[in-house]
Amino acid sequence: MTTPVKELGARSQAASRALALASTEEKNKALEICATLLVERSDELLAANAQDLSVAADQGMGPTPLDRLRLTPERIESMAAGLRQVATLPDPIGEVLDGVRRPNGLEIERVRVPLGVVAVIYENRPNVTCDAAGICIKSGNAALLRGSSTAQHSNLFIAATLQAGLAQTSLPVDSVLLVEDQSHEEAIALMQLTDFVDCLIPRGGPDLISSIRQNATVPVIIDGDGNCHVYVDQAADLDEALAIVVNSKTNRPGVCNAAESLVVHESVADTFLPLVTAELAKSGVEMRGDEKARARVEMTAACDDDFAREFLDLTMSVVVVSDLTQAIAHINHYGTGHTEAIVTSDLDAARRFTREIDAAAVIVNASTRFTDGERFGFGAEIGISTQKLHARGPMGLRELTTYKYLIWGTGQVVS
Amino acid sequence: MTTPVKELGARSQAASRALALASTEEKNKALEICATLLVERSDELLAANAQDLSVAADQGMGPTPLDRLRLTPERIESMAAGLRQVATLPDPIGEVLDGVRRPNGLEIERVRVPLGVVAVIYENRPNVTCDAAGICIKSGNAALLRGSSTAQHSNLFIAATLQAGLAQTSLPVDSVLLVEDQSHEEAIALMQLTDFVDCLIPRGGPDLISSIRQNATVPVIIDGDGNCHVYVDQAADLDEALAIVVNSKTNRPGVCNAAESLVVHESVADTFLPLVTAELAKSGVEMRGDEKARARVEMTAACDDDFAREFLDLTMSVVVVSDLTQAIAHINHYGTGHTEAIVTSDLDAARRFTREIDAAAVIVNASTRFTDGERFGFGAEIGISTQKLHARGPMGLRELTTYKYLIWGTGQVVS
Repeated sequence: MTTPVKELGARSQAASRALALASTEEKNKALEICATLLVERSDELLAANAQDLSVAADQGMGPTPLDRLRLTPERIESMAAGLRQVATLPDPIGEVLDGVRRPNGLEIERVRVPLGVVAVIYENRPNVTCDAAGICIKSGNAALLRGSSTAQHSNLFIAATLQAGLAQTSLPVDSVLLVEDQSHEEAIALMQLTDFVDCLIPRGGPDLISSIRQNATVPVIIDGDGNCHVYVDQAADLDEALAIVVNSKTNRPGVCNAAESLVVHESVADTFLPLVTAELAKSGVEMRGDEKARARVEMTAACDDDFAREFLDLTMSVVVVSDLTQAIAHINHYGTGHTEAIVTSDLDAARRFTREIDAAAVIVNASTRFTDGERFGFGAEIGISTQKLHARGPMGLRELTTYKYLIWGTGQVVS
Repeated sequence: MTTPVKELGARSQAASRALALASTEEKNKALEICATLLVERSDELLAANAQDLSVAADQGMGPTPLDRLRLTPERIESMAAGLRQVATLPDPIGEVLDGVRRPNGLEIERVRVPLGVVAVIYENRPNVTCDAAGICIKSGNAALLRGSSTAQHSNLFIAATLQAGLAQTSLPVDSVLLVEDQSHEEAIALMQLTDFVDCLIPRGGPDLISSIRQNATVPVIIDGDGNCHVYVDQAADLDEALAIVVNSKTNRPGVCNAAESLVVHESVADTFLPLVTAELAKSGVEMRGDEKARARVEMTAACDDDFAREFLDLTMSVVVVSDLTQAIAHINHYGTGHTEAIVTSDLDAARRFTREIDAAAVIVNASTRFTDGERFGFGAEIGISTQKLHARGPMGLRELTTYKYLIWGTGQVVS
């Protein structure tokens, strides 16, 4: 018998009320205890993971997802290290964001508080169970987690371990709850748990995002696609541009901050395109270009869909533009609002690009791969938001908070 | 022939891109011009409004909604004054929220930018067309508005006037667009315009909110019910408590920050309940109490639903609690996360209440009626959020913004 999502939601909410009041010390201690326990129970966790791996292999799972599903002693150590790292981060809760004394004497403060119940729906990788729980606990939120069925043995064991850790502290054990029922109905129920869920973060592919958009009635932060562009301006240092394009595309092609599209100014295209194509070819990158790109280097013709796609592999679309205006228009049209980069030494071009590009992160003269909570110095990340509401770009502890107004009066009434 | 919502959305988005780059001076000038034009065209606007009033009267609209629908020369002056007031407010756009230089030399800034396209669906009152447009323009957002069919003549005329004003400036005329097609299908289409709408704010009753929750796939900020409580603690100054309860309940019973529920500590209930009931009765307030309240003062018995309801009229639920813990539990259970007040002279009680109550605004020793953008000093308000994501409590210019990260590099790549 699995627990219905609705009951889990109510328990999460009750836990969140207590967790919101926990001191930084209590939360840090809990994270440390959980980290120690995870490592202590490594053998059992690896055994649970082996069950998942065996089922997945039987079902014909490919090598890449199998690798994502796999835990090793090192990966368990790394999960524990993540919890310890979160413990070292400053506690965002209780910060007074601003405040004012009104003419009538009312003193109004805006204070940072937890969201409450943060639900995370994710795919495959069992370490997300631990990472999400850690970042939620530190930010004072109850974590209501739903992983994929393929990782269910691993996820159940990790959640149970974290709960066992919490049981040794003053924090509620229900601060971390895992949805056991893997039915479609219960997934939908989770997306519609408006009485209990304050924020839902989906971490997964387009199918999950689309299902969330269709079904979710709780507030959602979309961690969406990254169709990231690098624009090589006429005033670019071409060596720098080459290094940035190659790094953005090939450093880790399967992640959301990898570049998918190259935009080149016409006046440097004759020189730059053969150069970059040859360099990318060394890493096996296949280019798909518009007419102007193909006039300069032989490559597959790009269709409209190629410009809009997040390939997540060694494919890259290329377009040649006649000016910055065209570059910005192309990127704003096809981009997904994740990360867009320009390579230029021209101040005006850089400033116009940063102002006019509509994306979470706009980068001047650096790799798109820098859009990342760790690299931003957040110390922990629960995803990268591609929506504008609430949080944009990498989400760390601060992005899992809201605020409330405290109003201190001395008997004031409205006349 | 009305323009399909999808086409309006595309035009709004195009306008939003230009509007996001407009200077504060350009935006202020546009607001001034629109204000002047509205007043100049008062007679025509009153004529359009008379058409709406006549249809509404024929359809048997009651006096309260008829009054909300009615424009007068004073009300038009007040709409214009609202636009001029917004022009005087500081421009939130371009503010650098924070920034950091990373060890690798990357300089990361977080800069406040407009949301983009803000859609507002509202009921009855035509002044919302003007108010929402003004606050959107100042915050650099294109306003995509859908009023009620009952106010359609007024809304169309107001929108056309604002567009005529915008046409005299460098800002896009499409910065303000009104959905003309009043069909249910087009309302749903607006709620699902994910390609174009960055934020939807519904302003209306429970039916609208429920339809939004069911149908919206765009990001939403819920401006929901206010089931606001006043808790009179054992350490309350009872004169102060009386004034605060009466003001919270009767100052304007039909608005969301009016009190709907009274929570009284047992130890002061014998004295306070007869006092407050008598005083509230003078304003025609009917009390509905739990057993302990009815043991002290004769009143209707409250059912569970009475504790959960936003009456919006001269009815108030009453519960007597044995301690602060019970008071907090009652309020967190039945409250809607809007505004909750405590009257007490006990510091510990006040601090516990402010920490443990989960609401947008927690008020100590003042009327619940203070939760309001104007009274908070925002200078303008587009609604009061009862959700936790993005904005909580009164929403002014700042709450209609998001941010983007600008990353300035010198050729950095990820290793």
